[in-house]
Amino acid sequence: MPKAALVCVGSELLAGQVNTHQAWLSVRLRRAGFDVVGESSVPDEVPAIRRALARALAAADAVIVCGGLGPTFDDLTREAAAAALGRRMSLRPALWKAILQRFARYHLAVPEENKRQAHVIAGAKVLANRAGSAPGQLLRARGRTLVLLPGPPCEMYPMFEGQVLGRLKKTHARGLHPASFSVRLSGVPESAADEMLEPVRARWPQARFTILASGGEVSFHALTVESSDLAARRVRARLRREILDAVSDFAHGEGEETLEHALGERLRRRGLTLAVAESCTGGLLGGRLTAVPGSSTYFLGGVIAYANALKVRSLGVPSRLLSRHGAVSAECAAAMARGARRELGASLGVAVTGIAGPQGGTAEKPVGTVFVAVSGPGRAETVRRLDVIGPRENVRSRAVTSALRLAYDALA
Amino acid sequence: MPKAALVCVGSELLAGQVNTHQAWLSVRLRRAGFDVVGESSVPDEVPAIRRALARALAAADAVIVCGGLGPTFDDLTREAAAAALGRRMSLRPALWKAILQRFARYHLAVPEENKRQAHVIAGAKVLANRAGSAPGQLLRARGRTLVLLPGPPCEMYPMFEGQVLGRLKKTHARGLHPASFSVRLSGVPESAADEMLEPVRARWPQARFTILASGGEVSFHALTVESSDLAARRVRARLRREILDAVSDFAHGEGEETLEHALGERLRRRGLTLAVAESCTGGLLGGRLTAVPGSSTYFLGGVIAYANALKVRSLGVPSRLLSRHGAVSAECAAAMARGARRELGASLGVAVTGIAGPQGGTAEKPVGTVFVAVSGPGRAETVRRLDVIGPRENVRSRAVTSALRLAYDALA
Repeated sequence: MPKAALVCVGSELLAGQVNTHQAWLSVRLRRAGFDVVGESSVPDEVPAIRRALARALAAADAVIVCGGLGPTFDDLTREAAAAALGRRMSLRPALWKAILQRFARYHLAVPEENKRQAHVIAGAKVLANRAGSAPGQLLRARGRTLVLLPGPPCEMYPMFEGQVLGRLKKTHARGLHPASFSVRLSGVPESAADEMLEPVRARWPQARFTILASGGEVSFHALTVESSDLAARRVRARLRREILDAVSDFAHGEGEETLEHALGERLRRRGLTLAVAESCTGGLLGGRLTAVPGSSTYFLGGVIAYANALKVRSLGVPSRLLSRHGAVSAECAAAMARGARRELGASLGVAVTGIAGPQGGTAEKPVGTVFVAVSGPGRAETVRRLDVIGPRENVRSRAVTSALRLAYDALA
Repeated sequence: MPKAALVCVGSELLAGQVNTHQAWLSVRLRRAGFDVVGESSVPDEVPAIRRALARALAAADAVIVCGGLGPTFDDLTREAAAAALGRRMSLRPALWKAILQRFARYHLAVPEENKRQAHVIAGAKVLANRAGSAPGQLLRARGRTLVLLPGPPCEMYPMFEGQVLGRLKKTHARGLHPASFSVRLSGVPESAADEMLEPVRARWPQARFTILASGGEVSFHALTVESSDLAARRVRARLRREILDAVSDFAHGEGEETLEHALGERLRRRGLTLAVAESCTGGLLGGRLTAVPGSSTYFLGGVIAYANALKVRSLGVPSRLLSRHGAVSAECAAAMARGARRELGASLGVAVTGIAGPQGGTAEKPVGTVFVAVSGPGRAETVRRLDVIGPRENVRSRAVTSALRLAYDALA
C-alpha cells in the first residue's frame, strides 16, 4: 500500500487550537488505499517546517501539508517547501491577476503582502481555491508527491476532494483497487461491537480494520486492496454483507451517515413529524436533529424544560407525577415525550431527563442516570434507563445519542 | 525558555479520531513557561514510536507522550521508550499487586496481559493512576525529561496536572517565573481584536502572544518569563491592565471563562432568570447555556420553534407579523424573545432566527442571515442582524455566540 504523511503548519496548533485536519485527511486517505504513517504539527517557522517536510518525504509517497499559505509574514509554508525541495519560487502573473480580481469583486483594496500568494514553486501545479485567496500547490519530486493546502477547512476540504485525491490515487495507487466499507453503529458499546465483529476480522487476515467510538456512536471500517476493480467490488460486497450480518441490530448507516440523518430518513419516508422535550440535554437533542440540512421537513421543534415548572406548564407533566417519582424517572420521561407530541402536534415525541452532574446525584440515582423516552408512532411508547460514567459532557452526548436511537428503533 | 515536545501514540489518530490531547497539553505547557516546539502522531508500532521519541528528545527539554500504556498487544509505548533510551524494563511487584487489588474491587478476573502494565523502565518514577489501571512513568535522561501518560483524558488530565506539571517546572523552569494572562472576547472579529491589541504587542517585544478564534469567540494570551515571582506578578498585573484597557468592550472573561459562564454569573448576581426561543439553532443555544454546571439557578428552558406554526402557537408570534416580515426578520426575532420571556415567565428572553443553509437563501436574505434578539430586563429590547459567511455549522455556532453576547450586554 502506498504511504501518506501529514504535516500541519501553524503555531496555533501548539497553543491550544484543536487540530481537526489530521482526522479529516486520515479518513479520506485511508479509504483511497493509503497507509497514513504519521502526522506532525509544527510552528510557523521555516526551519521547523522544512525539517518536518524532509522527514515526511523520506517516509511517505504522498505528503499533505495544511496551513501557512496565507498572505501574512507568518505564512511560510511556500518558502519552507521550496527550501526542502531545493527549488526556486516565482511570481505567476495569472495568479496575481486572479487575486486582484477577487478583491475587486468585494470592492476591497489588495494589501501588497497578498502578492506572496501568487508565488509558485518551480514545477508546481497550481490548485485553484474557490473559497479563498490562497491557491494550493502540487509538486512531484523523486517519485514523491508534495501537496500544499490552505488551512481553513472551507478552502482545504473542497480543494483536497476535488483536485488532489484523484491525482494521488492515479499516481500512487494505480493498479491498486481499494475495497472499503464503513458502517456506523449506535445503541451498542464499542467493546461489544468489537466482539461481534471479531469473526469477520478473523476471516479477513489481509484486511485492515478500524473501530472508533465517540459520543455513544461507534464506527467500523474495513479496507483491503485488490488487483482489479471487479475484484474490489466483489470483495466490498462480501465484506459489507458479513459486517452487516454481524452487527445488523445496531447499524444505522453506511459510510458517514449519522444517526440523526438516518432517523430523519425514516421520518421522511413515512411522512411523520417529530418533537422533543429536553431537560438535562438543554437543547442538544434538537441541535443534533437540526444539524441535518432539510430537517424542517420532519422536525417541528420542542420544549427545553430545564425547570420543573416548565415540565408541568409547557408539557403537561402532572405535578403529582413529579412529586411522586421525581423529574429524573421513567414516568417523567414518558410523560414529557407524550407532552411534546401532544402540545406540539407531532407524530413522535422524544424526551430526555437525567442528572448530568457534577452535582445532583443520589445513592439511588447517581450522576449519569438518564431516562430517554419515545411516544409514538400510534400508541407505541418506550422508555430506557442509561447509566453513563464520565463527566457532564459525556452524560449529555450519550443521552442525545440514546434518545435518537430509541426514536430510530421506534420506526423500525 | 525551556522547550517541550508532544508525541501522541495511537493508530486511531491516523484513522479518523480527533486528537484533543495536543491542544490540551499545549495550553498548559505554555502557561507554565514552556515553548511547545512540535507534536507528532504515530501509529502503534515500536519503530515509529521509537523514532518519534528520539527526535523529540533531541529537540526539547521535556517530552510528553500520551497513549499506548494499556494492557493489550498494541500498547507499545513502554517498549519503544525503553528502546529509545537504551534501558531495560522490569516487573514492579507493588504495581502488579495494585492492579490485582483494583480488579478485585470490581470483582473482575485479571487478564494475564495486564501484567504488562506493571513493567517499568529502569530509573523511572511511577505516576499513580487514580482513574484507570495504566500507571504513568517519568524518566530523566541526559538532562531531558520523558513522561509517559495514559491515553484516556479522564486518566491523563489529573495525572498531568497533579504529578507532572509541577515536576517539569521545577526541573526545567527553575528560576523562570512565567507571567501569563489570558482574556476571552466575544462580539468582535479576530482581525479587529488583533488590531486593537497591536499597541500592547508593540510595547512588549519580549512577550509571546497568541490569538485564537473559534465559533465567534476570540481568546488572546500573553506570556513573558521573569526572573522572580514578584516581578512576574507585577508584569502580569500590568499586562492584564493594558490588555483589558485595549479590549474592554469585548472581554467577557479571564483565563478560560466561557461566555455562557460569564452570562450565567451576571444573571445569578442579579437574581434574574432566562428563557430561549430558537429557530435555526434548533436547541444549540440552550445546549451551550446548560453546559455550565448549576445553570438551573437562572436558566428556565425554552422553545425550539423550528416550524413557523410553533412560533405562533408556543411563542405567540402574531401570524400577520410572520406573513408581513417573514420568519427571518428583526421583527420576528424580537417577538420570539418577548414570547419566550412571557410564556416561560423569565426575566430575560433570548431569540435566534436565521437561514443556516445550504438551502433557503434569497437575494435579500442570503444564507448566513441571522437575527438575534433579547427582551428584558425590564422594558429593554435589542435586536442584531448578523451576516455569517461559511457552512451551516459556522452559521449556527456564530448565531449562538452572538445571542449569548447580546444577552450579556443587556445585563451590563
